[in-house]
Amino acid sequence: MTEYVSTQGYKGTRDFYPEDKRFLNWLKTKIDHVMRLYCFEEYDGPFLEPIELYLSKTSEEIVNQQLYSFRDKGDRHVAIRPEMTPTLARMIAKVHQTLVKPIRWYSMPTCMRYERPQRGRLREFIQLNVDLFGGNPKDEDLEILQIILSLMKSFGAQKEHYEVKISHRALLDFFLLKYVVLDKSHIPSVVRLLDKKDKISLEVFKEEAEKLGLETKAIDYLLMFLDKDLNSLCADLLKDSPDALYLKEILETLKSLDPHAPIEFSSSIVRGFDYYTGLVFEVFDRNPDNRRALFGGGRYDNLIASFGSEPLSGIGFGMGDVTFHHFLEGHHLIPSLAAKVPVSVIRFGEEDRVKALRLCQRLRDDLGLFVEAPLSLQKFGKQIQHAQKRNATCVAFIAQEDGEDGFTLKWLETGVQEHIKFDSNEYKNLSQRF
Amino acid sequence: MTEYVSTQGYKGTRDFYPEDKRFLNWLKTKIDHVMRLYCFEEYDGPFLEPIELYLSKTSEEIVNQQLYSFRDKGDRHVAIRPEMTPTLARMIAKVHQTLVKPIRWYSMPTCMRYERPQRGRLREFIQLNVDLFGGNPKDEDLEILQIILSLMKSFGAQKEHYEVKISHRALLDFFLLKYVVLDKSHIPSVVRLLDKKDKISLEVFKEEAEKLGLETKAIDYLLMFLDKDLNSLCADLLKDSPDALYLKEILETLKSLDPHAPIEFSSSIVRGFDYYTGLVFEVFDRNPDNRRALFGGGRYDNLIASFGSEPLSGIGFGMGDVTFHHFLEGHHLIPSLAAKVPVSVIRFGEEDRVKALRLCQRLRDDLGLFVEAPLSLQKFGKQIQHAQKRNATCVAFIAQEDGEDGFTLKWLETGVQEHIKFDSNEYKNLSQRF
Repeated sequence: MTEYVSTQGYKGTRDFYPEDKRFLNWLKTKIDHVMRLYCFEEYDGPFLEPIELYLSKTSEEIVNQQLYSFRDKGDRHVAIRPEMTPTLARMIAKVHQTLVKPIRWYSMPTCMRYERPQRGRLREFIQLNVDLFGGNPKDEDLEILQIILSLMKSFGAQKEHYEVKISHRALLDFFLLKYVVLDKSHIPSVVRLLDKKDKISLEVFKEEAEKLGLETKAIDYLLMFLDKDLNSLCADLLKDSPDALYLKEILETLKSLDPHAPIEFSSSIVRGFDYYTGLVFEVFDRNPDNRRALFGGGRYDNLIASFGSEPLSGIGFGMGDVTFHHFLEGHHLIPSLAAKVPVSVIRFGEEDRVKALRLCQRLRDDLGLFVEAPLSLQKFGKQIQHAQKRNATCVAFIAQEDGEDGFTLKWLETGVQEHIKFDSNEYKNLSQRF
Repeated sequence: MTEYVSTQGYKGTRDFYPEDKRFLNWLKTKIDHVMRLYCFEEYDGPFLEPIELYLSKTSEEIVNQQLYSFRDKGDRHVAIRPEMTPTLARMIAKVHQTLVKPIRWYSMPTCMRYERPQRGRLREFIQLNVDLFGGNPKDEDLEILQIILSLMKSFGAQKEHYEVKISHRALLDFFLLKYVVLDKSHIPSVVRLLDKKDKISLEVFKEEAEKLGLETKAIDYLLMFLDKDLNSLCADLLKDSPDALYLKEILETLKSLDPHAPIEFSSSIVRGFDYYTGLVFEVFDRNPDNRRALFGGGRYDNLIASFGSEPLSGIGFGMGDVTFHHFLEGHHLIPSLAAKVPVSVIRFGEEDRVKALRLCQRLRDDLGLFVEAPLSLQKFGKQIQHAQKRNATCVAFIAQEDGEDGFTLKWLETGVQEHIKFDSNEYKNLSQRF
């Protein structure tokens, strides 16, 4: 007995059937447009990289648990990219001295991480990466936040749908050193605790804070910090923090460009990665059924340090396609993306194959129409049915009365038939009717 | 001492800097358009597949020598796709009973093969895959060849630049069985010899034919076959072959659609893969410096047999981006793809940041212009120089005389400056001037 191969793909990956690919293409086209409005250029890189690239750059969790790595047939240790930033850093480090600054780059690579597949998380995903380096930090920070607001707007997202929350790493350090910890070395563990604050109860939070050696007073300060808005903090706990004032200015500038922009300070934003050094931000879905961080990013000091290049600071973010799809779906922001066939050509027998093909070719060449040629010889009614299944706008065929210099067009919605001559104005302007 | 990470990527892969990505995007856009003219739908699939998929379908050379395979952290044996056809077959097998036939699908996946990198061959490449199933074979064969001709034409390729050579597997079998071999089982070895005919001398060809046990008379027939055109063969050696007549009809139909189409029969076309069963074809570069097969394909009987599905025959081809790039380059068919910045906005100090950002935003929102915002505060002359380096068409700024309701536009090529008011028709129609 023959053993058949399974039609299941590898766990955590997706098959993009035409309807799925249409969604991705729609997504990509909209993103491309916004990125071009801001004069960003697209780049791409290899799917496989030498493993050294990740050992030095990526977070420990990714390297130890999530990296797809193996040895090639020549014993080179390689890895499938789990994120784009290390490749970006490598590419920039290679040529940055010759590039005109600032550098505005974006990419939409497919990446892979060995994770337990779940809602919003797959092993293979597409991640929009937007990065900006080599300019004045304040202007860069503003531009990246503007881009996020423009992106969301371009998808029809309203201020009820999402929220951008920003904070600043140095502000956090300032606060923690002043009120919570005794020593800089304690900061990372407290930051990690803050990062999971929203996922645990107040009691557990307090317990864990105690475990970290924080005194009651320090914990009270932490809770106060998390509870206040930026103005109160500026007037009080963060009075001497230049970064708090910086955030105020960033927010005021953005609000003066768009008073309804859903962007606020939030002390709970810390971002897990160690390499962020300045502004950090996260975009949240406000859908009550799907309240979660959609994506985020921040400012890093020196992306290309590990390549021995001179420092280059920048700001960037990454947005995964899976969670973003859920966001758009949840707020009904995906339009109908059904495939459409403007013209489906029909023929009547073996002998009129060439005539039908010539008609197809003329409609494509002369008018740029998307035309489906007949690939089987069925009865007229069957071919009409086929065209309807294809979502065709009309069928075209050469009836006896059309002779050599025209054809018949039947509009499927109305059933109206027209005879059209190739030398008529009607023919010349036909494509405008689709 | 710190050890720095190399900026070199993995051997045989490419970094797509913005200029490279612009080429790829240009290529993809043109291909997308042609595929849509023929109502093909785009699909995509996973980069990793279970290894079983390739063990059953791909050629032995690929599986044994060229496959990137490894075990994931859960001990699943997986492989990076070396080609798209097995994924396509799996996806079709899964759903083909529910799909409206014929199925017209295309994809442009990135694939990887462990090969020695050389001109025209890399380890990571992009391959256009076009496939057509479930229709009448003759119409499908015609459509696939038409698509190839349309594709080449859409890139500006003329009949001096390339040539499509077609043949038929059954015609070859018919001829070999009648004149050359005694038994069907000898056919594959003779086919392999024919496949490399152009790469070896006549003497070596004869020697190898003898080694295969062919008699002098059989070898003479082989050489005669390779030497004749289709008409002579139809009148003589292939008089009783229905497939020879079939090819004649295919060629006549295509020539009646375009008398100059560079497509001919060639008895030397056999295609290496065993799974081809009908029409086979290859596209050749006619550049004397780069005479080589660009890509090819053919008809297969049952793509989805190994999944236990009912038979589904089709025809398809795959075209790699690396060789096609060489083809286009060799014939000077790649236009200038320089990045352009329509408008670069300039500002004069810290205090007019918001004004400048508001101008950027208006030009983007109102007019859909691609606008570069100022990311550093330099002298006016420096900012103009920067805009020129960016290939900007003009710079925009708010001069004192512009007040609150307008701005100044300086066209960089002519140096002409204009003051434009936001409420003018000049402003409304500005985007038409780019």
